[in-house]
Amino acid sequence: VKNFFDLKSLFSDDLSAVNSVISNSLSSKEHLVQEVGSYLIQSGGKRIRPILTLLFSKICGYSGDKHILLASAVELIHVATLLHDDVIDESSTRRNKPTANFTWGNKASILVGDFLFSQSFKLMVKSESVAALQSLSNASSTIAEGEVMQLARLYQNRMISIDEYEEIAKAKTAALFSASTHVGAIIANQHFDIQEACKEFGAILGLIFQITDDMLDYFSDPSKSGKNLGDDLAQGSITAPVIIAYNKANSEDKKKIEDIFFGNDRGSKFEEIKSILVQYDTESLITNYVDAHYKKALTTIPSIPHSAELTPYLYQILDYARSRNG
Amino acid sequence: VKNFFDLKSLFSDDLSAVNSVISNSLSSKEHLVQEVGSYLIQSGGKRIRPILTLLFSKICGYSGDKHILLASAVELIHVATLLHDDVIDESSTRRNKPTANFTWGNKASILVGDFLFSQSFKLMVKSESVAALQSLSNASSTIAEGEVMQLARLYQNRMISIDEYEEIAKAKTAALFSASTHVGAIIANQHFDIQEACKEFGAILGLIFQITDDMLDYFSDPSKSGKNLGDDLAQGSITAPVIIAYNKANSEDKKKIEDIFFGNDRGSKFEEIKSILVQYDTESLITNYVDAHYKKALTTIPSIPHSAELTPYLYQILDYARSRNG
Repeated sequence: VKNFFDLKSLFSDDLSAVNSVISNSLSSKEHLVQEVGSYLIQSGGKRIRPILTLLFSKICGYSGDKHILLASAVELIHVATLLHDDVIDESSTRRNKPTANFTWGNKASILVGDFLFSQSFKLMVKSESVAALQSLSNASSTIAEGEVMQLARLYQNRMISIDEYEEIAKAKTAALFSASTHVGAIIANQHFDIQEACKEFGAILGLIFQITDDMLDYFSDPSKSGKNLGDDLAQGSITAPVIIAYNKANSEDKKKIEDIFFGNDRGSKFEEIKSILVQYDTESLITNYVDAHYKKALTTIPSIPHSAELTPYLYQILDYARSRNG
Repeated sequence: VKNFFDLKSLFSDDLSAVNSVISNSLSSKEHLVQEVGSYLIQSGGKRIRPILTLLFSKICGYSGDKHILLASAVELIHVATLLHDDVIDESSTRRNKPTANFTWGNKASILVGDFLFSQSFKLMVKSESVAALQSLSNASSTIAEGEVMQLARLYQNRMISIDEYEEIAKAKTAALFSASTHVGAIIANQHFDIQEACKEFGAILGLIFQITDDMLDYFSDPSKSGKNLGDDLAQGSITAPVIIAYNKANSEDKKKIEDIFFGNDRGSKFEEIKSILVQYDTESLITNYVDAHYKKALTTIPSIPHSAELTPYLYQILDYARSRNG
């Protein structure tokens, strides 16, 4: 059985090329830039976005070398976003390691984030594909808009609907997944409908990815997932598991959820919230919710060029996204 | 006698077009984005960078409409930079108004800055000029690098040389001035040597602009300049006036300068530093220092296309930059 992680070995040459483009992008006379940048890049991550660009350019029949530049650009946008996110969320650890803002301070994180973001644009420009630039620059501004949306909801101190949640998740997460698959089809000069199918696959995958991410914040083993439990609660960020349990809850439990989220010591109420989530069987509810998106993603696959070697991975990636534990 | 500000009326139609492109770029479903963005754009500024793009595209004979997109992009990069700068510098006022970070918080400033930055890229992409994109994406990453450089120097707690100062000023300020003039020549399809002359003129102008900015932080009338006196001292940022006075100072005064800048209550020592600057006649020293750059800028003008109507403004802009009081 093929596994998502097999893609890493399948694309190992391309991924080394991506890694070296990224290292070159981090090189700077200024030691602090290199230090922060390298720390982030080396602290790993799954490289799922650049792998998507490599996979979709190959499945769409692309044979040049722009995919390396664009896959690198996509990862740099992602890393730049993480740097700013950790400042916004006041996070002190990510993947069991201290965050850059914790180590070098918020100012360095903001500025190095800006630098990485600019470097990603330089790589896109180097690809000389105006359509790819369009897709990725749209994604970048959608991401920023999604982050502002999320912040604005926090300031509003109110329960949000699942539609509002999806709007944020689509903007802050799915947009970049979507651009990652889209640019693969773009540089391969695929027909518009095929480009759209690739884009849609990426968008749904990204949404599923965000939903499972938000589940892992309540239901995961931190030693395996590398995540802190309860970060979203501590930040007051209302995510799918909470909304879905809230919608099922009786009025007493609804009030409990509100009191906790809009009260002053959310941070200490993790077990309380979690027991409500368990009580309403949120894990099954989320599984059903994700399944609906999963099925929608499957419908895009017939419109994506078929490859005996690569098409099976499309299913594997979706399976990975919905059942991952870290 | 023509004056720099006459350019605003000369280009009033183009500038209205720029303003409406910028307003469109700020439009967002998310109210907070529009609120912060509009506040910043409306709080004014001299629009010197977009005016440079308009002037240089016209002087280079350009007659299409990409100059509007690029002038708008340049201003958005500038505004995005201001948003992040004010967070980094912990500023509470700019141009006699509360800063965005003071009003909406650092988080909103970081994210709306990211949004404006992405929007600026969308405008550049819309221009479809890969060479202009190259110039502006290079400028963006140079700006970020310059900001990190400045931060890294602060962390080092040591006196810096005038060369180090210039390196920072060239990166954080001159790079965008330089790209603003450069893209004008690029879209006009001017010969490489002419492009380089335009770029160089912008670079030196930007450096002069930064030096006078740093002078105004010690020697200006805040009610006219809209600046706070002593911001650089409060942040521990060592700028041209201090370096130039330091280089002339006797060892006792050198020690005084060091003690103040690397001590704990810099903020209260403005008058003390200023009296040392006055004692060494820093205003004349800076005038000579700026004059050297001014003369270098003059040598680029013969290589820029001549226009009976517009060439005089090149001199006026330089005069404005070196003698401005706000």
